[in-house]
Amino acid sequence: MAEAVSVIGSYISPYVRKVLACLELKGIAYRIDPIAPFVGNETFTRLSPLRRIPVLIDGELVLNDSSVICQYLEDRYPTPSLYPADPGQRARARWLEEYADTHLGDVLVWKLFFQLGAKRFLFREEADEAMVRRAREEEIPAALDYLEAQLPPTGFVFGELSIADLSLASFFRTAGFVKYAIDASRWPRMAALVDAVMALPAMRRLADIEDRIVRVPLEQQRAVLADLGVALTADTVGGAPARRGFR
Amino acid sequence: MAEAVSVIGSYISPYVRKVLACLELKGIAYRIDPIAPFVGNETFTRLSPLRRIPVLIDGELVLNDSSVICQYLEDRYPTPSLYPADPGQRARARWLEEYADTHLGDVLVWKLFFQLGAKRFLFREEADEAMVRRAREEEIPAALDYLEAQLPPTGFVFGELSIADLSLASFFRTAGFVKYAIDASRWPRMAALVDAVMALPAMRRLADIEDRIVRVPLEQQRAVLADLGVALTADTVGGAPARRGFR
Repeated sequence: MAEAVSVIGSYISPYVRKVLACLELKGIAYRIDPIAPFVGNETFTRLSPLRRIPVLIDGELVLNDSSVICQYLEDRYPTPSLYPADPGQRARARWLEEYADTHLGDVLVWKLFFQLGAKRFLFREEADEAMVRRAREEEIPAALDYLEAQLPPTGFVFGELSIADLSLASFFRTAGFVKYAIDASRWPRMAALVDAVMALPAMRRLADIEDRIVRVPLEQQRAVLADLGVALTADTVGGAPARRGFR
Repeated sequence: MAEAVSVIGSYISPYVRKVLACLELKGIAYRIDPIAPFVGNETFTRLSPLRRIPVLIDGELVLNDSSVICQYLEDRYPTPSLYPADPGQRARARWLEEYADTHLGDVLVWKLFFQLGAKRFLFREEADEAMVRRAREEEIPAALDYLEAQLPPTGFVFGELSIADLSLASFFRTAGFVKYAIDASRWPRMAALVDAVMALPAMRRLADIEDRIVRVPLEQQRAVLADLGVALTADTVGGAPARRGFR
């Protein structure tokens, strides 16, 4: 590869994790600019019109949306493939990715992780306890019931590792930062799936980095990441906090 | 084709329209079950876990999410292609589709069409006037500014017709039901693009049907559609209004 691609986004985001997992698994060299949406400057707004992360930059091409980016990486760098070959299974994999992006994003990230983690830590605001309780007691169990019914007795969703497995695990990993863990006695297939994905060398490399920076303030993350040997972009689009763009 | 595929969903929905447009353009025979999410019965919940439309059923395969469905139709029925061949352009097309699904869905459908149309007509509730005003005066113009800058001087976004054009036009078509029209003096490329898509024979066939049923109560739509010669599913998953699932 002539030039490394770059990724704008936080290691804590499940959407960013999906993209980094695809890059790692496909062996594509990349640099990262570790920002969160609420610290993006005007360049970030230009690169990401909805002020969302991740952003992928590959030469002249600037791409938004984790699902669009992962599919692009598959199209542009097809080996190893992370999408099932059969059109029906490929569609089912994309649906599980969409379900994770929207519904798990809502119940695991917004209603749990953001309330208990980011909101307190970054904005010094209290969690919405009623929202958290409802997510824990009703919404997340209902989502796990649905997902459990989609999985085979053992192994990855479609046999070979695919974007479906990476997506589901990425969201539960972020929920793990606020101590959420799937009850393996109630949802054994989902618990085993997340464990299997998180045991992949590529995911362990990312998890090691995540663990080292999860409580490091954003403005200090570049220094910590550089110490860890992570390849960083020369410039950052972080800086002037314009407005909250997390949601 | 041995057996027609079927689609669950309302002709008024931009998400359903994208799927019907792909089916029409690819010449795939289909039957429709014209329901809206808030009238779906328990079978609907089983087929669409987030109670969203459209649902595509192709033999044993049940698929949710309009983007997943359109991409499946492309993979399974590749001719004529509705996705650019170049991976970078294909990714850009998927991004514009995602931008339409999420952001135009928010500002054109939820904040405009739903408030001024469906909410009054179906639920006898008043529109949130402040929300409508902000959408009209700020959010929709900002989205059009962004989109105008993405378009070539003339023609479809990537030269040949693609999912990007179909997606963008589908959302503005639904906004048109509450008399919204793009100001061609301010956004000439976007206005011309929507006009060009809506002039396609496939889109005109759909628009003729839409115009005939847009003010017909859901429970009477099957009869009106049958009179128009539309192929309907034998059974319906409409029925018991469980809860509002529109948003």
